[in-house]
Amino acid sequence: MASAWETHARKARDILQQSIPKQWMVPANQLPPATQLNVVDFPRTSGILTDKELAITEMSATTLVERMGEGQISAEEVVVAFLKRSVVGHQLLNFATEFMAEKAISRAKVLDRYYKETGKLVGPLHGVPVSVKEHIGIKDLTLNGGYAAWVDDIAMEDALLLQCLEKAGAVFHVRTNQPQSLMHLCCSNNLTGTTLNPYNRLLTPGGSSGGEGASMGFRCAPLGIGTDIGGSIRCPAAFCNGYGFRPTARRNPTSGLKSPEPGQESILGVVGPLSSQSIEDLNLFQRAVLNQEPWDIETSLVPVPWKDARPTKNMTVAIMWDDGCIRPHPPVLRALKHAQKKLQGIGIKVVDWEPYKHGHGWDIISSLYFPDAAASQRALIAQTGEPILPLTEWAFQYSRPAPLAVGEGWELNHQRDIYRDEYHALMKSRGVDFILCPAYVGVAPVLGESHYWNYTAIWNILDQPAVVFPSGLNVDPQLDAVDKSYQPRTVVDEREWKKYAPERYTGAPIGLQLVGRHFKDEDTLAAASLISTALEEQMAKL
Amino acid sequence: MASAWETHARKARDILQQSIPKQWMVPANQLPPATQLNVVDFPRTSGILTDKELAITEMSATTLVERMGEGQISAEEVVVAFLKRSVVGHQLLNFATEFMAEKAISRAKVLDRYYKETGKLVGPLHGVPVSVKEHIGIKDLTLNGGYAAWVDDIAMEDALLLQCLEKAGAVFHVRTNQPQSLMHLCCSNNLTGTTLNPYNRLLTPGGSSGGEGASMGFRCAPLGIGTDIGGSIRCPAAFCNGYGFRPTARRNPTSGLKSPEPGQESILGVVGPLSSQSIEDLNLFQRAVLNQEPWDIETSLVPVPWKDARPTKNMTVAIMWDDGCIRPHPPVLRALKHAQKKLQGIGIKVVDWEPYKHGHGWDIISSLYFPDAAASQRALIAQTGEPILPLTEWAFQYSRPAPLAVGEGWELNHQRDIYRDEYHALMKSRGVDFILCPAYVGVAPVLGESHYWNYTAIWNILDQPAVVFPSGLNVDPQLDAVDKSYQPRTVVDEREWKKYAPERYTGAPIGLQLVGRHFKDEDTLAAASLISTALEEQMAKL
Repeated sequence: MASAWETHARKARDILQQSIPKQWMVPANQLPPATQLNVVDFPRTSGILTDKELAITEMSATTLVERMGEGQISAEEVVVAFLKRSVVGHQLLNFATEFMAEKAISRAKVLDRYYKETGKLVGPLHGVPVSVKEHIGIKDLTLNGGYAAWVDDIAMEDALLLQCLEKAGAVFHVRTNQPQSLMHLCCSNNLTGTTLNPYNRLLTPGGSSGGEGASMGFRCAPLGIGTDIGGSIRCPAAFCNGYGFRPTARRNPTSGLKSPEPGQESILGVVGPLSSQSIEDLNLFQRAVLNQEPWDIETSLVPVPWKDARPTKNMTVAIMWDDGCIRPHPPVLRALKHAQKKLQGIGIKVVDWEPYKHGHGWDIISSLYFPDAAASQRALIAQTGEPILPLTEWAFQYSRPAPLAVGEGWELNHQRDIYRDEYHALMKSRGVDFILCPAYVGVAPVLGESHYWNYTAIWNILDQPAVVFPSGLNVDPQLDAVDKSYQPRTVVDEREWKKYAPERYTGAPIGLQLVGRHFKDEDTLAAASLISTALEEQMAKL
Repeated sequence: MASAWETHARKARDILQQSIPKQWMVPANQLPPATQLNVVDFPRTSGILTDKELAITEMSATTLVERMGEGQISAEEVVVAFLKRSVVGHQLLNFATEFMAEKAISRAKVLDRYYKETGKLVGPLHGVPVSVKEHIGIKDLTLNGGYAAWVDDIAMEDALLLQCLEKAGAVFHVRTNQPQSLMHLCCSNNLTGTTLNPYNRLLTPGGSSGGEGASMGFRCAPLGIGTDIGGSIRCPAAFCNGYGFRPTARRNPTSGLKSPEPGQESILGVVGPLSSQSIEDLNLFQRAVLNQEPWDIETSLVPVPWKDARPTKNMTVAIMWDDGCIRPHPPVLRALKHAQKKLQGIGIKVVDWEPYKHGHGWDIISSLYFPDAAASQRALIAQTGEPILPLTEWAFQYSRPAPLAVGEGWELNHQRDIYRDEYHALMKSRGVDFILCPAYVGVAPVLGESHYWNYTAIWNILDQPAVVFPSGLNVDPQLDAVDKSYQPRTVVDEREWKKYAPERYTGAPIGLQLVGRHFKDEDTLAAASLISTALEEQMAKL
């Protein structure tokens, strides 16, 4: 007889399998061989998408809405195109946990009817397909959060964020994979398995919003929704050549998300958008949500409306080349240098950023991730006897050996607040508006090797808005040779440094991260838009 | 040899005694006898204040600033007048912990010089004397927080709130008393003793900002600063015929306040203003502070600017006659009826408010006040062996017998958030803008009898802005007879009901509380201003 977890896992796989629209699957013998690592161009030759559908799936959300507003394309065409691409993507990358094709198409038809009758769009996201990380609740659907124990849990209603997006016109067509415990920068669980990176299937798409990373990289949706407590939106975006935004906490609504720690608020997880196309789309998402004043329903949110912020070259960007703990890999350093030149070239003031106590920040946040020594997570896992995956154990060992005493928790909160105030004061005193830095120690790690979190997690403990975007560069063995002269500072630094060899990361895109001041979300996106566009122009010229 | 706590207590008393400007003390034999309960009019006959000084001390902050702006009075005259009144008040009420006469006067002189040279005021609080609850740090001064153990602690800098107020022109002339542990709605400690209510010296001025209550009731300052985690601003204001405001949390800066639990954030204490004169002055205080954008220094604050809100009669006020747990005493019910008539008389829509699970709210907040089972507080007390006062023990017994496990704390936070969302939704669905309710089960309690917190604490767990103001009425044995027909619902209801007999509360003013929606601080003050003015007009007509 199958053990409890195996029975649960089969249920999760059955839900997934039954939901796949089979008519859009590529016959197995026409799929690229497993040895083909980079599959991003496969949709062009898959035979599943028409030329028009290919074109649609390469448009940004902003463009799609414009075209639908002009009556050039219908919402149904759009969602079908992205559904097809998602089915093909899933065959190659295993990124979905459940398709919602029927519901999405009938919703698109409603939107088309509305447009036909009124000549208007229902809202700023009219007809935009959005992929959704699994642990974000959808009414009447399972909500497993990456745990076998929760496979039978059903959401009673849509998460508030989804309600807002749906009012704005969004269409949800596919739910996406996440790791066991939601606490890997990688994407494996015992239910639906491991998700792969579309740029190199030996690499991870990142995590915990790994299904979203793959979805963006393969353009299965123009927009996706992830969650981030240590880098879980930003790493997937960076690893898959996408865009991702971690807003300041308490801006986007989080009610209706499944987690083993409701009420844990020392380190707040946030929910935010990923885009396959542009910073502009991230801003579109944020505006659509916050214009609905979700704080009038979820009272933990701050009542700060989304402002329109214009990009300006009148800013100071500080580049953090290294966090003072772990040396970034050569491709990342090259991308930073590339960005530095480009920014200077368009007249932006660029200085160096001296990191401030990032090790201390990590000590605080890592002690606060599992204040109960991961007892709630371990209990959930033990409930069905599912195996603890190596990266789950890796994350759990961040916690102190015993649950934090009440006073220990307070002291860490207090240290966190002091650190935040100090870091904020430092940015002001140095006259720095934004910090440009790595999104990770390297590009997408080899599956199972995502160990170092603190290029992203530091901005979680500091609660600063951070956005990730492509540098426009990919790993290049000619340009990104191992620097044999480097002397690692610590055992951990050595561990990360030794992982680098260009041939392990062939074709991987190099993402960068821009960080703004606490609550300067709009300005951060505006600045990232300017920088990202500048990098794209560079590419176009090359 | 004196025990540790007695040595510490003597130090605290020495600090106080040495700081009193002796030249303004009333000779002991000219003080009213201890049997004279109501002393609010004593300044008129004290021989210490001139007529002009009496007039100054009866002006609001708003008026004082206007007069100083017109050059009619100087900042030095103002602070001297309030210092004199404070010294007399302290002799009668024991409300101060330390005078800062010299520093205040020299600060006032600087302001006068600035005005003379520029013809301008330094800011919106130019020359306004402000009394300050002791546990709010002032550079180089002791900061005992009501604990003998902390008598030697010295603040390294001014609390951020004080920095903001000082920039706006405020002058700090006296620090005020608080109870042991800061957790009584009364005001006794082992250091400087017990503070009395100026309207009836057998009654408490309330707590924990009890020194502030007395300061407002006796008009020792036009504005004061208190802190509130369960009613500690509002009860003192209500009990002493003053005005007091509990803002939504994370609006006013709290860094530099002394407490045994830095980092405790399940229930956030707030800091806010008390006024002896008007709601308008509370608004003046808030605007002066928030216009300085303190969130750009203390990053835990929300970046929500202070708006100008106009009072409007186009609102729905719901009266909560009873919280469903404990019946208010007859004077409170009479004041609510009085307010109801008056509001209806000026055309405001008034409905009844059915309370929603206030007992449940109390269960949550009382379990969160001392998540460590008051271990940190008990340790502080044990450090010097000071006696635990009865109301300290009373508060400590709210906590569960053992420290909360990590998961229990999360669950309570989660319940708190659900309760907040539900209450907020209920106000919206009922179309209610504000709730008018008791500030306490009765008027100022007899010293040592402040047991029931939940007419104020409920708005702490709900994090709704709440403002207290005089109803314009005082206890009247003719009108406020015991209602012998009332059948208490519970043992606690009976305990509170039995405390009532009009003769125990002779002369006590009856305060009322107006509660707004979460983050609607400005609107709440504006509505309270309209209501409070309406009640004053009523008084004038009588």
